[in-house]
Amino acid sequence: MIETPYLLFLGDAPDQLAAKVAQGIRDWRPENAVGQFRMEGCKADLGLPDMSLAEAKAAGAKTLVIGVANRGGVISPAWKKVLVAALEEGFDLASGLHNLLRDEPDLVAVAEATGRALHDVRVPEVDYPIANGVKRRGKRCLAVGTDCSVGKMYTALAMDREMKARGMKSTFRATGQTGILITGDGVPLDAVVADFMAGAVEWLTPDNDDDHWDMIEGQGSLFHVSYSGVTMALIHGGQPDALILAHEPTRPHMRGLPGYELPTLEELRDTALKLARVANPACEVAAISLNTQHMSEDEATAYIAEVEARMGLPATDPYRFGAGKLVDALARLS
Amino acid sequence: MIETPYLLFLGDAPDQLAAKVAQGIRDWRPENAVGQFRMEGCKADLGLPDMSLAEAKAAGAKTLVIGVANRGGVISPAWKKVLVAALEEGFDLASGLHNLLRDEPDLVAVAEATGRALHDVRVPEVDYPIANGVKRRGKRCLAVGTDCSVGKMYTALAMDREMKARGMKSTFRATGQTGILITGDGVPLDAVVADFMAGAVEWLTPDNDDDHWDMIEGQGSLFHVSYSGVTMALIHGGQPDALILAHEPTRPHMRGLPGYELPTLEELRDTALKLARVANPACEVAAISLNTQHMSEDEATAYIAEVEARMGLPATDPYRFGAGKLVDALARLS
Repeated sequence: MIETPYLLFLGDAPDQLAAKVAQGIRDWRPENAVGQFRMEGCKADLGLPDMSLAEAKAAGAKTLVIGVANRGGVISPAWKKVLVAALEEGFDLASGLHNLLRDEPDLVAVAEATGRALHDVRVPEVDYPIANGVKRRGKRCLAVGTDCSVGKMYTALAMDREMKARGMKSTFRATGQTGILITGDGVPLDAVVADFMAGAVEWLTPDNDDDHWDMIEGQGSLFHVSYSGVTMALIHGGQPDALILAHEPTRPHMRGLPGYELPTLEELRDTALKLARVANPACEVAAISLNTQHMSEDEATAYIAEVEARMGLPATDPYRFGAGKLVDALARLS
Repeated sequence: MIETPYLLFLGDAPDQLAAKVAQGIRDWRPENAVGQFRMEGCKADLGLPDMSLAEAKAAGAKTLVIGVANRGGVISPAWKKVLVAALEEGFDLASGLHNLLRDEPDLVAVAEATGRALHDVRVPEVDYPIANGVKRRGKRCLAVGTDCSVGKMYTALAMDREMKARGMKSTFRATGQTGILITGDGVPLDAVVADFMAGAVEWLTPDNDDDHWDMIEGQGSLFHVSYSGVTMALIHGGQPDALILAHEPTRPHMRGLPGYELPTLEELRDTALKLARVANPACEVAAISLNTQHMSEDEATAYIAEVEARMGLPATDPYRFGAGKLVDALARLS
């Protein structure tokens, strides 16, 4: 659990895209972001107040989050000075970089001396149990994709926001680094040891109110041979009541796997639903989330209508047209 | 890679069952077992020559394998003296216990001083790659079960032996602790980090002769919610050309999961084959391995005949009736 709110460290980001993690926090949990810290030459700007460490501290920030990725995911010497000063100022540090904070002896030494925490969100910090498959109270929704990186996290976050706006009970449950930094909590599922994957998902989505929805962040795809085991653990550990099918229609092949064609939405529906019903016989496919970023608005509208007619399920692009239709579909299942 | 042949350490095993791992080595790789080492009070006997450390050394043994499990999987003080003496005598040590050899400071110190290796086969020793899904040469066979512990390892070992006896090219590929100790090599798949599971299976079953079969040890079940992610990684990382369906017909529920019914063989066939064809469109279900240990011989024979007729596939219990029929089925696919 990472203490909020954050000061977002953008470092010397070469462009806006390099600050994608910080942008995610700013977009999805603005209440967690009191300000941004930019070094000389920083080309990213989140439109948040620029703050010194002392100003951010005075404004209530508890954790400096490294919201920027640089080449190779390393912690540069230029950053080090700021990170050390932040620890001395009383901030915890949080990072999703490959280069772990805990592998930097100077940061470890200062953190120990000052009693501050170093959060490497790529590394599990909990001894997860083996899944027991016992039915839990409350409802759970999982987005499953025809491929990796088709918008599953965005879909869950957008639905969570819309549900809260409607007064529905909802919690976004992060299963990847960006999601964990956005919310301050979650399970870095791709770094969990195989035997404990499904148990980690059970741990993440415990008993809850009967009308509460856990919006579980999806990972990988049942059809992506590199990561399908992680997806499987989400389906069986998550016991979803509702699946959202996620698809990006312009991919020439599975991400990183030339020669592997994407499955159809029908194949995804049939395969995922059958497997999900092992853990939860009441599971239904609720709706379809389409990522139309590479289509014009007219093309997108026509494509969405075609998918709805073909699949007999509500469909939309939540980024382009909002998540209302997807939440309507969930609400009908409640 | 554990150096063979072995001296099998049975310690103070309270009964024959406690020496199950040693029995597996003796049954499946007798050429790896030069003798047994028994302490006072040992109630297990593999029918191998009892040897002192010096005698085993003279007979060519390279590694002392802890072939016995005691309560809690711990390394008892009584054992410690023998293990230290073995290192000093020039043996490596290998163990599949929960209590790791490397967590015992005295063993670590002696191993370092003598230059010997401590093999904890529960712990991956390789940085496995992320799976790339590239089609590999040679053929692969994987047993998939309706449940855990239905005889998948036994099936693969028995088929491997029969194939070698016929002069076919075959390698048993271990994916669990017992299998690794039996063969001296393999991947402890349930201990691999999620992102690398399928890559570890690819690593374990590399390019080979066109007429060579990797007999991959199965794990878990697609229908067992605790471990299904591991099974999924075997199916996609292993790219099997042939699946063997494995089933134990008297289970009241899934192992460790009261309330979860076993799937039918038809459900297993349809689900596993569809998923396997993502990685290898040519995959076929070759045959069915039935574990009839809780049936009389007449019941077993009748049940096997019923399954063969219903499923239209060759079926047998390889423990009871030999693996010949299963290998015949593979040979027809070659």
